[in-house]
Amino acid sequence: MSIDSRVGISRRTLLGTAALLPATVASLRPISALAQPVAPGSALPSWNEGAAKQAILDFVRATTDPSSPNHVPPEDRIAVFDQDGTLWVEQPVYTQVVYCLDRVPAVVAKKPELKSVEPFKTVLSGNREAIAKLPMRDLEKILAATLSGMSVEEFRDEAKKWIEAAQHPRWKRPYTDLVYQPMLEVLRYMRDNGYKTYIATGGGQDFVRVYAERVYGIIPEQVVGTAGATKYGYGKDGKPFLTKEPKLLLNNNNAGKPEGIYFMIGRRPNAAFGNSIGDREMLEWTGAGGGARLEMLVLHDDAAREYAYGPAQGLPDSRVGTFTPALYDESRKKGWTVISMKNDWRRIFAFD
Amino acid sequence: MSIDSRVGISRRTLLGTAALLPATVASLRPISALAQPVAPGSALPSWNEGAAKQAILDFVRATTDPSSPNHVPPEDRIAVFDQDGTLWVEQPVYTQVVYCLDRVPAVVAKKPELKSVEPFKTVLSGNREAIAKLPMRDLEKILAATLSGMSVEEFRDEAKKWIEAAQHPRWKRPYTDLVYQPMLEVLRYMRDNGYKTYIATGGGQDFVRVYAERVYGIIPEQVVGTAGATKYGYGKDGKPFLTKEPKLLLNNNNAGKPEGIYFMIGRRPNAAFGNSIGDREMLEWTGAGGGARLEMLVLHDDAAREYAYGPAQGLPDSRVGTFTPALYDESRKKGWTVISMKNDWRRIFAFD
Repeated sequence: MSIDSRVGISRRTLLGTAALLPATVASLRPISALAQPVAPGSALPSWNEGAAKQAILDFVRATTDPSSPNHVPPEDRIAVFDQDGTLWVEQPVYTQVVYCLDRVPAVVAKKPELKSVEPFKTVLSGNREAIAKLPMRDLEKILAATLSGMSVEEFRDEAKKWIEAAQHPRWKRPYTDLVYQPMLEVLRYMRDNGYKTYIATGGGQDFVRVYAERVYGIIPEQVVGTAGATKYGYGKDGKPFLTKEPKLLLNNNNAGKPEGIYFMIGRRPNAAFGNSIGDREMLEWTGAGGGARLEMLVLHDDAAREYAYGPAQGLPDSRVGTFTPALYDESRKKGWTVISMKNDWRRIFAFD
Repeated sequence: MSIDSRVGISRRTLLGTAALLPATVASLRPISALAQPVAPGSALPSWNEGAAKQAILDFVRATTDPSSPNHVPPEDRIAVFDQDGTLWVEQPVYTQVVYCLDRVPAVVAKKPELKSVEPFKTVLSGNREAIAKLPMRDLEKILAATLSGMSVEEFRDEAKKWIEAAQHPRWKRPYTDLVYQPMLEVLRYMRDNGYKTYIATGGGQDFVRVYAERVYGIIPEQVVGTAGATKYGYGKDGKPFLTKEPKLLLNNNNAGKPEGIYFMIGRRPNAAFGNSIGDREMLEWTGAGGGARLEMLVLHDDAAREYAYGPAQGLPDSRVGTFTPALYDESRKKGWTVISMKNDWRRIFAFD
């Protein structure tokens, strides 16, 4: 009698089971005891050794090691990530603003009366310098006009088509190529260790949801962003649909970030990643919880490989993603970790 | 040489692996090919044979069988459930309203000027008949006063303490005992087949999140409900916290249900369960998607074991959960399935 038949399992079954194991382990992220630990050296290959990389490794070990006093049960592990300037390039203009500017001709075609009205007139002129100088209240008018008035499916289809075709002016590549490889590794590393990864963006929730799963591996319900209301109604065929309304429901910036995270997730994250003053309250609120905490800020100090901006380093200020001196002071006082793109990242993009 | 050493796996490992398998299979819900199919007969033991039970089994088979033309990939499987009257008892008053009425003395203790102001005066009088007659605008004042003005943690702790101690007047049991056993089986059956189960309640999102995980196995971020805004601020110690504000952000009733579901989840569910006119739009929107769809309505027609109410069956109307004739007509026309509590459910509660 073979061992196989004694234990009541045929060799075929055994091999079948063994063959399934890799898939099984990968799917078992929430059960840390079974998860295949990633060797610390291999988890974040695009990171240089240093305080930033070490802070991530230390935090994950402290919260996932069952013998750690700061162990967090898998179901409570939540990490939130700002998008613009934290997960992908935000210069020279937020990608979603480029999308909205590109949509203006289509909006004016439907509403010709806007043709001679500001700020639409300026956008249609194609005068880049004038467009760049449009004040915030004009940008808001453009956002409202281009992000509402259509069904949620129409919006999704338009945005998807655009994001697949549009190119960044500097790299001549799709914007979705301009995600930071080191941060993709952090997202994956956190998930491999049982963390649910959320995007908490000041950008449009609907816009980011269009590509977040493909680009970041983050499903729609794990994208928290600035969101407008929708309105339920019926088409001529009696079929119900939702229309995007020009009414702000959630302004997911500054204090709106912890408010939005609480609203959508219902609990405080354990880890938060940002890059600007708009992420301050998210990091503060994350940091105010008990146990081990991780708060990180990406500093754009690499003009050669990406951009250098932000007054905290005496670098030029910017319309986007401002890393202010006050934020820098607070990060030092509270022990938040600043990630220097120049020093901490071996590689910036996957195509590097 | 034993078989074991030939395949390079010790018997200990083999047995260890086999011992892990049940847990492994249970954790692998998203991978339908590996999931242990539950025999249709054993999946819903508290259901009688009939059209309602069959509709659930047929829908799950149609959407999970890889050879089915209506197969839905595991990551796209979403089922939404109304709570009051669909997952637990809503008579004689919504549980959350009882909570708010019970909180009035504590609110008045903090704000004595409310003592002689209506509707607080009536609530404090303890006159049940007068309280039951309070118009909706008075109830809204009570809800606003008792559900805001405290930190989110204070609210959670208070609500948790209350829900663990309060008892239903008829059964003299905690309200959380009054969940419908057949619906708990549906929740589990859907999850075992890769569905993400969400609550979409007209009740308070924060209130339901307090007990949804313990009672329904539904984590906070999978509860969509009527929600107020919160306000970020700092305590005297400089520590940030969120205060619940008396400002409605999401009215998750009627048309607000599909709007809220789209906002929170970002996509259309495949299955929806409700029991009243407030669930109509949620069922319509769910039903308007492609492929196999499941829309179900619980009919309260069992006065002996629970309650009988709703004009659709010529039963007395009710302040809560009205199953109107119009809803009944629409459900017949659109092929929604009505669940008769009397005929379809073998058992109502776990303690039956």
